[in-house]
Amino acid sequence: MTMPRAFLFDVFGTLVDWRSSVTNELRQLFDAKDITADPEEFAVAWRDAYDPSMAPIRNGTRSYTNLDILHRENLDSVLVQFAVTGLSEPERVHLARVWERLDPWPDTVEGLKAIRMHGLIAPCSNGSIALMANLARHANLPWDCILGAEIVRNYKPHPDTYLKSCAALQMRPEHVMMVAAHNADLHAAQAAGLQTGFLPRPAEHADPARQELVPTGPWTVFGHDLIDLSHRLSSHLA
Amino acid sequence: MTMPRAFLFDVFGTLVDWRSSVTNELRQLFDAKDITADPEEFAVAWRDAYDPSMAPIRNGTRSYTNLDILHRENLDSVLVQFAVTGLSEPERVHLARVWERLDPWPDTVEGLKAIRMHGLIAPCSNGSIALMANLARHANLPWDCILGAEIVRNYKPHPDTYLKSCAALQMRPEHVMMVAAHNADLHAAQAAGLQTGFLPRPAEHADPARQELVPTGPWTVFGHDLIDLSHRLSSHLA
Repeated sequence: MTMPRAFLFDVFGTLVDWRSSVTNELRQLFDAKDITADPEEFAVAWRDAYDPSMAPIRNGTRSYTNLDILHRENLDSVLVQFAVTGLSEPERVHLARVWERLDPWPDTVEGLKAIRMHGLIAPCSNGSIALMANLARHANLPWDCILGAEIVRNYKPHPDTYLKSCAALQMRPEHVMMVAAHNADLHAAQAAGLQTGFLPRPAEHADPARQELVPTGPWTVFGHDLIDLSHRLSSHLA
Repeated sequence: MTMPRAFLFDVFGTLVDWRSSVTNELRQLFDAKDITADPEEFAVAWRDAYDPSMAPIRNGTRSYTNLDILHRENLDSVLVQFAVTGLSEPERVHLARVWERLDPWPDTVEGLKAIRMHGLIAPCSNGSIALMANLARHANLPWDCILGAEIVRNYKPHPDTYLKSCAALQMRPEHVMMVAAHNADLHAAQAAGLQTGFLPRPAEHADPARQELVPTGPWTVFGHDLIDLSHRLSSHLA
């Protein structure tokens, strides 16, 4: 292993806890509006709509549409699916942007600051620049710049998402490490030539069948959490 | 005036002192290599090559080429112009990236931190993402994200540079303020619908004829430096 000069990060699930953050905000809203839908089931259904909604963009049948618009479209669908009525347009607009108000895992900020000592750090997320910048303010994520879907105008795991993010750093992929709690993200990054760092986030999903607890590929580095991963990077360097 | 929700900044000259930073590095290099060219004249000639080198990209006769490549091309030309020989390829590569090692003006970091209390802050510079990220590390510039030439694939003062930077923030131009020490930059930003903030940087140029000491347009706000500009924003808000 050669020490990477930059680190790209998956964000939703890897750095921030979307499930509890979205659920908590929905619970408050539903309570206030006497809506009987289950907030956690609603949050999971909304998140489940995420990947299919990007497919037409990845396969070229829909032009690049940012994730904020997809989140809003998916919200409207899930509201119908759960028969939730009575939300005003301003309430829907505000709720659709809950993805900018996700809380970090307890180790995220300290881990990012430690890894930042080794090189540039940037999100390589499917979130838009605005979403990532606003989320970074909320969750105190100390990015050097924002890379990923919007500068590439395509979605992970399309190889361009990784390759053009490296190109924006003016670095070869082998000098850049993708860090994620999702093996599929790392398979795609490794296929594109990047180094890979895996950490498990057992609390991302409540359903044990969806939890990714172990690496499924020959990743460059493993950490129990982001702080542990930063320590293992340092010992590799020593 | 309504308080902007985001602030875009010119960088070279407005936030960092390119003339003394480049001159100082050239002086050390020229001394070490017994090169007799005048380092400040060289720095000014190199900077003078900057604007003409972007013209073919603005007018569409050359595809987008990042500023790091233009800086290197211009360096090679100015080395010939000043009859400087004896620099190795690694020395030229390192020197071409001196634009990532420019020092901030004394008020820059405190001023940016103060303005950042009012909204998102980002460079809207002709520098690339990599250049801006590396310079931010060197000069401690606390950006929320990096906008400007590379995400737009065109150079200021083309209107797209401002408009697409606002679009990346998902804000209307009237909710964004462009801050610069150069009136021409603000004329272009204002024509694109942005608010404008001017501050003079009398030390940017040694030649008094090139110093822009006063506003030449009806800019939204004026500051004697960036800290003063932040105070005037706050009093507008109050």
